[in-house]
Amino acid sequence: MTQNQKSITLLITGGPVVTMNSAGQIFDDGAVAIDGAEIVLVGPRSEVEAQVAAQSTLDAAGQIIMPGLVNTHTHAAMTLFRGFADDINLEPWLKKILQIENRYATAENVRIGSALAFIEMIQSGTTTAADMYWQRVETTDLAREVGFRLVNGPSFMDFIGPDGIQPTEREAAARDFLARYQNDALIECCMQVHATYTVPTHLLEKARQMQEEFDLLFVTHASETRAEVATIVERYGQTPIQYLDSLGLLGPKTLLAHGVHLRDDEIELLARRGASVAHCPESNLKLGSGMARAADMLAAGVNVALGTDGAATNNDLDMWGEMQTAALLQKGLLFDSTALPASQALQMATVNGARALGLGDKIGSLEPGKRADIILVDFDRPHLTPLFDLYSHLVYAVNKADVQTVIINGQMVMQNRQVLTLDETAIKTEARRIAQKFEII
Amino acid sequence: MTQNQKSITLLITGGPVVTMNSAGQIFDDGAVAIDGAEIVLVGPRSEVEAQVAAQSTLDAAGQIIMPGLVNTHTHAAMTLFRGFADDINLEPWLKKILQIENRYATAENVRIGSALAFIEMIQSGTTTAADMYWQRVETTDLAREVGFRLVNGPSFMDFIGPDGIQPTEREAAARDFLARYQNDALIECCMQVHATYTVPTHLLEKARQMQEEFDLLFVTHASETRAEVATIVERYGQTPIQYLDSLGLLGPKTLLAHGVHLRDDEIELLARRGASVAHCPESNLKLGSGMARAADMLAAGVNVALGTDGAATNNDLDMWGEMQTAALLQKGLLFDSTALPASQALQMATVNGARALGLGDKIGSLEPGKRADIILVDFDRPHLTPLFDLYSHLVYAVNKADVQTVIINGQMVMQNRQVLTLDETAIKTEARRIAQKFEII
Repeated sequence: MTQNQKSITLLITGGPVVTMNSAGQIFDDGAVAIDGAEIVLVGPRSEVEAQVAAQSTLDAAGQIIMPGLVNTHTHAAMTLFRGFADDINLEPWLKKILQIENRYATAENVRIGSALAFIEMIQSGTTTAADMYWQRVETTDLAREVGFRLVNGPSFMDFIGPDGIQPTEREAAARDFLARYQNDALIECCMQVHATYTVPTHLLEKARQMQEEFDLLFVTHASETRAEVATIVERYGQTPIQYLDSLGLLGPKTLLAHGVHLRDDEIELLARRGASVAHCPESNLKLGSGMARAADMLAAGVNVALGTDGAATNNDLDMWGEMQTAALLQKGLLFDSTALPASQALQMATVNGARALGLGDKIGSLEPGKRADIILVDFDRPHLTPLFDLYSHLVYAVNKADVQTVIINGQMVMQNRQVLTLDETAIKTEARRIAQKFEII
Repeated sequence: MTQNQKSITLLITGGPVVTMNSAGQIFDDGAVAIDGAEIVLVGPRSEVEAQVAAQSTLDAAGQIIMPGLVNTHTHAAMTLFRGFADDINLEPWLKKILQIENRYATAENVRIGSALAFIEMIQSGTTTAADMYWQRVETTDLAREVGFRLVNGPSFMDFIGPDGIQPTEREAAARDFLARYQNDALIECCMQVHATYTVPTHLLEKARQMQEEFDLLFVTHASETRAEVATIVERYGQTPIQYLDSLGLLGPKTLLAHGVHLRDDEIELLARRGASVAHCPESNLKLGSGMARAADMLAAGVNVALGTDGAATNNDLDMWGEMQTAALLQKGLLFDSTALPASQALQMATVNGARALGLGDKIGSLEPGKRADIILVDFDRPHLTPLFDLYSHLVYAVNKADVQTVIINGQMVMQNRQVLTLDETAIKTEARRIAQKFEII
């Protein structure tokens, strides 16, 4: 170590570094220097190497070094229902799933379902997810244990859910949750409600008060189906977007899942308020909900991110698939092969996702001062040969199984495709044991 | 070996056997008996084991045993142009690609590009493809060498292509091609022309004459873009479908690639004539061509199969992706979650594909008397856990990297993800060497 060299914990060298910074920099023979949980230097290999003395190094030759993917909308534990109710209408789907949920969304089962989701997300290069499901303490505690970055938070409803919490106890439970994960390195709290058509006005207002009190992100499903929009228009004389705005729930700290059915004026309103949308193209298609106007939203200045939704409606938690589907769908929808280009799809899955979750200063790109959420993607593959454009390959050709190594908050959680912080075999066995019970209903 | 046991070369046991036969049989603990290139017995493991004495056995525990996938439309050697011209309009795309093709679609380069495609297709469980490209002898000879089942055939055009063949020499070249692969175990000949808008009427008629003379499948692109339909309507006063029919080119031995822009009466005409469509949803989206009415065609009785198209417009040759995209897209297009269910998507990629290529009696399902084109898919994966419905998993959740073993015509061509008949490292190196030259144009 020379006098001017900074001591760091980990130096990654070898492959091209796709930074996803605002200048869109790619360092062909680059390096990323990490100290603890933080990125301290990103640049050409020779320059970075000259400035640091690393305790350990990681050779990423033949691999792309890039930010971990950000899944802005999922229901992690619903991996347990993967393929349980496919190719059927929404009504029988809800009936089947709700029946099972009410009986089996226990704390123990949700922990297994969430573990399965974390394995799947880590194996496919996702390093952050925003979750919405029952038994949120189980899922969030597990994320902290296994080193996965999670956005999660309490919710309000006027019935007793599978978690057994009474409506009158929700606020106390919410305050407990927010206290439990305060200033956690991996957990970011939000306030969330299911949707305007399932939650009464006074509880939406309560959620807004609490969002304000704790300065939180607010998350809800909005304008997912035509039926939902019709219901809200009939009930309140406004669309879900207008209704949320009338309650003061549209702002820069708002994340709306889906946003499939939006008029021009609603898109403009979202842009004006600085709200974000979690576009979930595969789930929207699979449920027959339709195709969101992602390109129009982006053109209007809305921050559009990507989400897989739950495994019951996707049926995997693969953000590469969402990127590709998002980019292809807009081209087909608009009869325009230039719509939603690869670089933009990759932004949606990284920097836009970070911003949507209120984590724009912490994750989403490889830049000094940000958390070390980094993935290495093997590009020495037949289906990635030859290579002309990294963005094109990352969106149109990379397969999730090409992800080799995953680092979250500076911690190695997958190396050479082996998840280090979860017992894959035991969790698969447990998930199968739980699922066997579903059949007998 | 007991007296009543039949001697066979290979017995595959262990996993569920997804037969894709007309009864839709699945044998949960099944077995497939193969003798040479042929399937001789399929059924419950105990029943099959009692009837055969196998020279070798393959334990497929934890794996799905199913027919290889059939890619009914690709341009194999275009793997060399993967990601070379993305997110741009058709005109600059054509200009870029044609310029490169004219200079670099040499016999030697096409051989490398095709080899790369065969590796990629084998690694993703595709055992048969229909190809359309320059230097077809190179591609077809290579398929025969490496044990890949290929449908390919001569073409007519009124200009000199990168293969250097004069228009006046095309017929002789066609007859040479047909003689060369007559009665080949792996190669099925077809007659093909690029499209009605690029090939003059007298050459379409010549193709029809030769199709009739040799009783071949006829393949062409049709109704891919709105511009193409408008051109043909202006030129001939008929749509491409009507025009092909007027030339006698629509029949049970016709395979039309794309069919994106079809009116109700055209769909009915295709059904009446017994023609097949190679639906290429990802390519159609990526080029901004639109979304074919696959569910409407299937409902009308048209045999709809699937194709990846070339890697320059996809950008991979992954039939699992096409199955999923096809199934999802129709649901979104029709606002109907029951449209194009998983079982139908899997039919499109197997039995419908076989029928589309005129190989319905040889491949596409696991049945006695058919060729042994078989793949094993590992389902002991987190993203395939738990398991409620095999069809659902195969269409909505399986990843191409889950394919472990590939057998074509009774020959093992991939084992434990290692392609046995091609040198992956050498071919990737060669492909990169060729692609480097493209940059300097």
